[in-house]
Amino acid sequence: MSESANRKPTLAVVGATGAVGSVMLGILSEREDVWGEIRLVASARSAGKVLRVRGEDVVVRALAPEVFDGVDVAMFDVPDEVSAEWAPIAVEHGAVAVDNSGAFRMDPDVPLVVPEVNGAAARNRPKGIISNPNCTTLTMMDALGALHARWRLTELVVASYQAASGAGQPGVDRLYDELEVVAGDRALGQRAGDVAEAVAAKLGADSPFPAPLALNVVPVAGSLKDGGWTSEELKVRNESRKILGIPGLRVSATCVRVPVQTTHSLAVHATFAEEITVGEARAALEAAPSVEVRDDLAAGVFPTPAGTVGGDPTVVGRLRQALDFPNTLDLFVCGDNLRKGAALNTAQIAELVAAELTA
Amino acid sequence: MSESANRKPTLAVVGATGAVGSVMLGILSEREDVWGEIRLVASARSAGKVLRVRGEDVVVRALAPEVFDGVDVAMFDVPDEVSAEWAPIAVEHGAVAVDNSGAFRMDPDVPLVVPEVNGAAARNRPKGIISNPNCTTLTMMDALGALHARWRLTELVVASYQAASGAGQPGVDRLYDELEVVAGDRALGQRAGDVAEAVAAKLGADSPFPAPLALNVVPVAGSLKDGGWTSEELKVRNESRKILGIPGLRVSATCVRVPVQTTHSLAVHATFAEEITVGEARAALEAAPSVEVRDDLAAGVFPTPAGTVGGDPTVVGRLRQALDFPNTLDLFVCGDNLRKGAALNTAQIAELVAAELTA
Repeated sequence: MSESANRKPTLAVVGATGAVGSVMLGILSEREDVWGEIRLVASARSAGKVLRVRGEDVVVRALAPEVFDGVDVAMFDVPDEVSAEWAPIAVEHGAVAVDNSGAFRMDPDVPLVVPEVNGAAARNRPKGIISNPNCTTLTMMDALGALHARWRLTELVVASYQAASGAGQPGVDRLYDELEVVAGDRALGQRAGDVAEAVAAKLGADSPFPAPLALNVVPVAGSLKDGGWTSEELKVRNESRKILGIPGLRVSATCVRVPVQTTHSLAVHATFAEEITVGEARAALEAAPSVEVRDDLAAGVFPTPAGTVGGDPTVVGRLRQALDFPNTLDLFVCGDNLRKGAALNTAQIAELVAAELTA
Repeated sequence: MSESANRKPTLAVVGATGAVGSVMLGILSEREDVWGEIRLVASARSAGKVLRVRGEDVVVRALAPEVFDGVDVAMFDVPDEVSAEWAPIAVEHGAVAVDNSGAFRMDPDVPLVVPEVNGAAARNRPKGIISNPNCTTLTMMDALGALHARWRLTELVVASYQAASGAGQPGVDRLYDELEVVAGDRALGQRAGDVAEAVAAKLGADSPFPAPLALNVVPVAGSLKDGGWTSEELKVRNESRKILGIPGLRVSATCVRVPVQTTHSLAVHATFAEEITVGEARAALEAAPSVEVRDDLAAGVFPTPAGTVGGDPTVVGRLRQALDFPNTLDLFVCGDNLRKGAALNTAQIAELVAAELTA
């Protein structure tokens, strides 16, 4: 699979028509162009659609083994079971698979990569597959990676404020549909169940979320696992450990959906092995790649999802030294869950592989 | 100030026309009626208004020393500086003042009371003043008080999801005004600053919140204090210590406003001196007064603000044993910030005093 340095590698984007796929096409069009052919792939239902990437129209092809012929890197943004079946097929056809599903993330033979944090891990891929982390975990990895490198992270207590687009386009549509229902009636929101009743009456009970999201927050994301934990909460724990290379990292996460369109936010309480000050932490974060510090509350400067969405960097602020916990920093982090949390990080991993193949 | 058992005490409600005041009139009308006369008091601007309480019309009187003549208990829900001036005047006129401002909460001569947790403290009031806790702190006190009584709380890491009505009626109005702006334009929410721009263009920049609240979360509540902490975050720490009687309780809080009308939610990571299990904790919470357990994720049962608002109990769920922290429970708590978080707890404290006066 060695490549000559003068041929640009071929990329396949599997799941090109989804919420993350759409953002991916924009990202591929904006970034330095390392790709030769870009092949767009989706389910048979979407085959034949024409999408624009790098200023050119590309016809979407149906997922089939032969679409991977001659492909060097295949990105997957599809459900777990589709990745589980098709990423190995892409590998059999000679591609490196970069997968954004949960299918392979905890497989010890599959690296889980955030390029700024553990980019070198991408080279060691016994199965030919590299996993892209869960969007909630990814939101804080660039910032925590920079802090861990110097002060050695030991504990994380995290509460999330996750956007509707984490549930894909149906999540975004449902949020706006619900906002339209509640915006017109100011008497809603005063009695338990009124919002749920009004929303169900107009939109039906079928929703990507297990409770109304408008005028509400929903402390459930993902599926129920042992001990009352959700899959999302366990991903934050297990993926943080794997990416940062801290098998014994102590983590508790509570994952909560909020009525925000796109960009996840996290309240992070991070404890380190060594003494850390706000000033030193701020300097380390300012020097970190892909991190932007907005931390001047007196001047009205702090991170919010509505002020972060659409951008590449993780935005970090509200840096505080914990008053009662040694070596501990409290902070607030916002990151676009469709960009760094998904498409951007996948594109960055794919570019690492492209650089390796053409080196 | 001793009362004969056959005369019902006189109550003054100062701040009767505010957001909390309105809820208070409803609560006074619903609860067992321990009061003789109920006098409604507000600023000169609101004097002369007629409000309904216990099914009767009552004319609002302007705040002045003589309105406290013959008053046994005076509740205050007014800004800190108004309480600081007027609660002592009420006391001089013979009343016990129950104050919901921040003016006296940390005064060592003023008890800070949650009746279910430290009701006995209300009897020891050298200044004649009893303080009602901050609404964010109050949201979790009934639940944590019940757990502390058995397992002895040592550490709290808290992230809040605070409702617009914590900023009073202007906060609620602003939230709905903003929701009307964003509900009509689904292109908003995709680029940084678009929501802020649209909202400012239609509503002006003058808001009770330092950033848009619609389609956003705002990690700022209260004012800026030392070390980058907000007043709200320090209240959670200092008031929890005082109410629970644990001067050395270790607390980190991050306080975040969310686009919910009423009911604060908290993600709580609570560590105890003794081993605690989810089963035992659930049983203790189910037995606790003013706590309702909604904790069966498999059946879709969990706390949300939209499912809690308008009710009296604190709703607790998402109980999980921390996987990596000994003696630690993660949980999610919702409480109506205008009821238990303000008016209801104030009414309960006033009733304790009434019972004492008529005993």
